[in-house]
Amino acid sequence: MSTPKFEYQALGKSGLARRGRLHTAHGTVELPAFMPVGTQATVKAMMPEDVAATGADMILANTYHLTLRPGADIVEQLGGLHKFMNWPGPILTDSGGFQVMSLSKLRKLTDHGVTFQSHLDGNTCELTPETSIEIQRQLDADVTMVLDECTAFPATEDVAARSLDLSMKWAKRSKDAFTDRPGYGLFGIVQGSVYPDLREQSATALTEIGFDGYAIGGLAVGEGQDMMLETLGITLPHLPENKARYLMGVGTPSDLINAVALGVDMFDCVMPTRSGRTGKAFTRRGEINMRNARHAKDPRPIDENCACPACADYSRAYIHHLFRAEEMLGGMLLTRHNLHLYQDLMADLRASIETDTFSKVAKIWETGLKIGDIEAI
Amino acid sequence: MSTPKFEYQALGKSGLARRGRLHTAHGTVELPAFMPVGTQATVKAMMPEDVAATGADMILANTYHLTLRPGADIVEQLGGLHKFMNWPGPILTDSGGFQVMSLSKLRKLTDHGVTFQSHLDGNTCELTPETSIEIQRQLDADVTMVLDECTAFPATEDVAARSLDLSMKWAKRSKDAFTDRPGYGLFGIVQGSVYPDLREQSATALTEIGFDGYAIGGLAVGEGQDMMLETLGITLPHLPENKARYLMGVGTPSDLINAVALGVDMFDCVMPTRSGRTGKAFTRRGEINMRNARHAKDPRPIDENCACPACADYSRAYIHHLFRAEEMLGGMLLTRHNLHLYQDLMADLRASIETDTFSKVAKIWETGLKIGDIEAI
Repeated sequence: MSTPKFEYQALGKSGLARRGRLHTAHGTVELPAFMPVGTQATVKAMMPEDVAATGADMILANTYHLTLRPGADIVEQLGGLHKFMNWPGPILTDSGGFQVMSLSKLRKLTDHGVTFQSHLDGNTCELTPETSIEIQRQLDADVTMVLDECTAFPATEDVAARSLDLSMKWAKRSKDAFTDRPGYGLFGIVQGSVYPDLREQSATALTEIGFDGYAIGGLAVGEGQDMMLETLGITLPHLPENKARYLMGVGTPSDLINAVALGVDMFDCVMPTRSGRTGKAFTRRGEINMRNARHAKDPRPIDENCACPACADYSRAYIHHLFRAEEMLGGMLLTRHNLHLYQDLMADLRASIETDTFSKVAKIWETGLKIGDIEAI
Repeated sequence: MSTPKFEYQALGKSGLARRGRLHTAHGTVELPAFMPVGTQATVKAMMPEDVAATGADMILANTYHLTLRPGADIVEQLGGLHKFMNWPGPILTDSGGFQVMSLSKLRKLTDHGVTFQSHLDGNTCELTPETSIEIQRQLDADVTMVLDECTAFPATEDVAARSLDLSMKWAKRSKDAFTDRPGYGLFGIVQGSVYPDLREQSATALTEIGFDGYAIGGLAVGEGQDMMLETLGITLPHLPENKARYLMGVGTPSDLINAVALGVDMFDCVMPTRSGRTGKAFTRRGEINMRNARHAKDPRPIDENCACPACADYSRAYIHHLFRAEEMLGGMLLTRHNLHLYQDLMADLRASIETDTFSKVAKIWETGLKIGDIEAI
């Protein structure tokens, strides 16, 4: 087998919603796609083959965490992230920038890069566009993300513009530092807060540099779904049609449906996995808190329309018991269910784009999701 | 299919070591057998199908814990423990007595039974021989254990004798309270601390009452392996040959080998599962602490002679990373490995009895186990 070219393949549209494929060194990703998050080289509470069984083609891993522990050198020595964590499929790594801002202490941001203290041992570390690219190469990421500054929300237009200026300089340096290898791609990240002019300026600047895909960053940071979708709507038209578009860190099932409707191809979010460990189930009829006493005797599955192992073989009563008893299997089963639900949603959306019934299918899902927890019983 | 009779089937011996089968309502258990512990209706950190895949035929669940949460009524309403926890195979439940003594507060022991405070909510509860039997019926245990008083260690012979007297009265009441159902059995429990006369007296008394199997209780409570084996050696000859013998709460791989050598058929212990969650790996060459820094770059599997998924697909370096990063997958993989190792040991011992090479195979295992952690690298 020859290594495939890294490539976005367009398969069709339904309205603005796009059906496509992303070809990478480690396999093909059916788009639109949701990527489960494997922050520390593991999708929490899941065996990797079970992640694949939910329908996920690609996962995300976090450069910041893996740099600090176990270290990119060790991952590289052990054959890269795919072998290290036993995930043979495509992997996207972030640049580490977002976590430097949100997790580490004593950050010093200069044009050169960012200096920070590890949240683990207090050691001083530096991340620059060039070192981030090199670390992601060591990790063997199929998709490498440029280092950027994720503009805080809210930000004045002046602050957002200065932040964007830095991010665009770093994007160019990232592109220069990235070594082309067959099947591997580099994504730029659009910033600009909620300001249409800045978003357009960012998208245009990145397109001029030329990337293998484009992410939309700086959203889902507190602006609310309406403003997120509005900002997406004014940003996406400025991105090339023939490259994948990735909305970073998003979101709820409703967020995914509405962003796909605008033409987004890729998502990642800790929501299904984190919720799974804390007892929150996503269903086709809204969210359920499995710790609630009303599930204690309920023989029904979490979601009667779900074919996942947690719904096939276990009652709400049992899963409720596991959470009350603080048993690991509770988080294991619920993570599996939530990821399955997310992947079922994406599969439904993909199929609906193929048959040009996207808006109808999207509405069925949205209507169901709004029924909500109380009505689900 | 007709429900099988509850029955011990003798298949052969090698020295005193016994190869047999235990037929139960929910399937057959190849003996000698190690039962993983599923205290709260889950073998911690494991999907039940993965427990079965390690080679386990039967598991143990704890009456004390399940009575307090979720309650035997709820388990019964939901179809019994097998359906509740998705373990279709045989299940043994203990009587709850041991945990009342070790976990609960404000115990009051009378001839009638034991009154205690729940360690969960402080509620006052009572356990008698009759209620324990009824709870285990509600749980739908294939093997029910009689309520006994596990004599503390050390105990004077007087104290041990008085404790034994109570346990034998309770054994009789348990037998009277137990309703015969095809495929379901009741086991008596030999007590008597480390006193040969008391052990003989207990074994004889239980045999006269007549049980479907016999457990040896009150061992592995601090007396050490030598005294445990000595006590076993003087107890087992007083038990009927045509019933299963179960050594409760034991033990290390070495304990298992030596107890099988004396004619024990069944074991349970939290050791492989608890160790798995805290980073201790059992291997054919002794124990390994996976948190130790010397594993940080080691590409080898935990145990090069192990075919479990954790050894097939993951390096020591990765598992070390998972424990350092406090990722659930560390405990999941190591639990799986440890249970696999225990089941491999039991399968080897069973095969060796069939070919009358038990002492040779036992010696190979014992020699390997003594190599120890340091030599394993």
